[in-house]
Amino acid sequence: MTHIFNFSAGPAVLPKEVLAQAAAEMLDWHGSGMSVMEMSHRGPEFISIYQAAERDLRELLAVPDNYKILFMQGGGLSQNALIPLNLLGHKPDGATIDFIHTGSWSEKSIKEARKYANVNIAASSTTAVPPQAEWQLTPGAAYLHMCTNETIGGVEYQPDFNDLRLQDVTLVADMSSHILSREIDVAKYGVIFAGAQKNIGPAGVTIVIIREDLLGKALPVCPSAFDFKLVADNESMYNTPPTYGIYIAGLVFQWLKRQGGVAEMSRRAQAKADLLYAALDGSDFYETRVAPSNRSRMNVPFYLKDESRNEAFLAGAKARGLLQLKGHKSVGGMRASIYNAMPIEGVQALVAYLNEFAGQHK
Amino acid sequence: MTHIFNFSAGPAVLPKEVLAQAAAEMLDWHGSGMSVMEMSHRGPEFISIYQAAERDLRELLAVPDNYKILFMQGGGLSQNALIPLNLLGHKPDGATIDFIHTGSWSEKSIKEARKYANVNIAASSTTAVPPQAEWQLTPGAAYLHMCTNETIGGVEYQPDFNDLRLQDVTLVADMSSHILSREIDVAKYGVIFAGAQKNIGPAGVTIVIIREDLLGKALPVCPSAFDFKLVADNESMYNTPPTYGIYIAGLVFQWLKRQGGVAEMSRRAQAKADLLYAALDGSDFYETRVAPSNRSRMNVPFYLKDESRNEAFLAGAKARGLLQLKGHKSVGGMRASIYNAMPIEGVQALVAYLNEFAGQHK
Repeated sequence: MTHIFNFSAGPAVLPKEVLAQAAAEMLDWHGSGMSVMEMSHRGPEFISIYQAAERDLRELLAVPDNYKILFMQGGGLSQNALIPLNLLGHKPDGATIDFIHTGSWSEKSIKEARKYANVNIAASSTTAVPPQAEWQLTPGAAYLHMCTNETIGGVEYQPDFNDLRLQDVTLVADMSSHILSREIDVAKYGVIFAGAQKNIGPAGVTIVIIREDLLGKALPVCPSAFDFKLVADNESMYNTPPTYGIYIAGLVFQWLKRQGGVAEMSRRAQAKADLLYAALDGSDFYETRVAPSNRSRMNVPFYLKDESRNEAFLAGAKARGLLQLKGHKSVGGMRASIYNAMPIEGVQALVAYLNEFAGQHK
Repeated sequence: MTHIFNFSAGPAVLPKEVLAQAAAEMLDWHGSGMSVMEMSHRGPEFISIYQAAERDLRELLAVPDNYKILFMQGGGLSQNALIPLNLLGHKPDGATIDFIHTGSWSEKSIKEARKYANVNIAASSTTAVPPQAEWQLTPGAAYLHMCTNETIGGVEYQPDFNDLRLQDVTLVADMSSHILSREIDVAKYGVIFAGAQKNIGPAGVTIVIIREDLLGKALPVCPSAFDFKLVADNESMYNTPPTYGIYIAGLVFQWLKRQGGVAEMSRRAQAKADLLYAALDGSDFYETRVAPSNRSRMNVPFYLKDESRNEAFLAGAKARGLLQLKGHKSVGGMRASIYNAMPIEGVQALVAYLNEFAGQHK
């Protein structure tokens, strides 16, 4: 096998142990004679897989009993519409949604929300999370939406964000690209959502964690397949769920538990990010553009000061098996995504290459 | 490995060759060092997988150039909302959708459509497709929706349905449970959709085949992630598609081509269905309830005349490795789903058991 480290922003690297188990079980899951892909979602085999995945995720994130966990389809992006479609049904016309704008994913959410409600951008910055004291919130807003880790720009709300004090505000958080990389206080949030293809599993599964009192408030035009209450009441089986993706997510959850859970993932994320940012900060060959206090521990965008060397940098990286380091087309430069499944050896190899390339081109 | 035949209605049996290839490639696709699950959807590796899948499906169904093929999320059920959300934007208030009601899936589609438009049930029967001469169509209806194979009730429009003559009617067909089992004249339809988990691949992928002039007619409240025009314009990558499911679907398409394509699948479907219905008709121990002229070649519901023997029948079947024969809870009885990936040996084993069980309980 070609030995590589895959820095893709998503779909992204998965634990090798998980892939090996999936390969071994592909034709015959636990002596059933069936692949997980071939199982009825209503049969006892798949139900056991589903229930274990739900239970393990609940344990990993310490999700309180008054929250439902939904396994949906459509991706994180679809939630930009599905959240208003599910939360605004009880509001009179003219509901307002507050947003904290911190980058490309906030921007997409804002644009989509305008279809369903008034939008107020309570604060905006793409290089740091605006201080809470500066947020201009709307009294009586339907909810406050934030993207707690911007995958493209690399701005992350820091772990102590759990100390945020917001009274009478329903907080909706897009945690797609850093869920399960740090401990969170779920009770602070009304809704947490995440596309799976960064820290959870394959693309095609979307996790929604929702406080029960927020169910049953869908607009009449909300498609039934995406009605949170119907999905919750049917344990994510109102229609056929993405069974194989849920199975892989479940294997990832088991792997996370074996590693020591989210606390251990947070420790590793800090160590990996410290190593990488130290290398970038320690060289005048590279630069980063996010305020140090809000640098993402998952997605590390960086730039060569001499961007004419970008192609040479990427070619040299690829030759060393360091893949998918090109930055998002909207911002250019480079980006290293270092999710839970990225071993520290991958970051060490990248740091060695950063130093080597800088040394060669001084 | 336990040797079984899996008669599940979906998710359902897949070709063993496909599963074996997926297992072999799980940790390293074509020397890339990556699992398909780990690939960026925008990278050259996955793009090549996507393009091959699209091309092969287009070839298998002879999809004309003026049709787009979309690989979406949400399942066939979600299309009951997404079709009106995408087709009614150019209609003044008060659009009407015509339906042919032939069973449970038509019923679900009708219920959902009422959220978005007036509904006219042009004809209704759950044991046969109503003759076209009896359809009461609405002049100027937005479109006519039909489910061409009812997975639960087992009513199927017959292959010669391609001879249907409908002038100035946009035909929308839910082909979830028999797509790729017979040749179709795509040009007769405005939209064809199908959840993947019966004849295509794993749950979590939905195929939409749409005539280009029907794009761009979405209602303002249609979520962007499910806007057919945005999906079409971005080659199913407006947001991250269900990459692994598309890969498996692509392997199934390659398998279908190796077998001889849809014409050969249709021949086999007829042979399998003839064998099974002959056994059911030939015994006074069992009964079927669909008019012979509209019996599904994919989903064969049947009943023991003495239903007190249902549990014994299922237990005996399971002991012989004949799995998932219990009928849908809404209709009871038994159901054998015999999709493309079910070998004739599976049907032969079922027929042998039908005869054996009937003989034992006379």
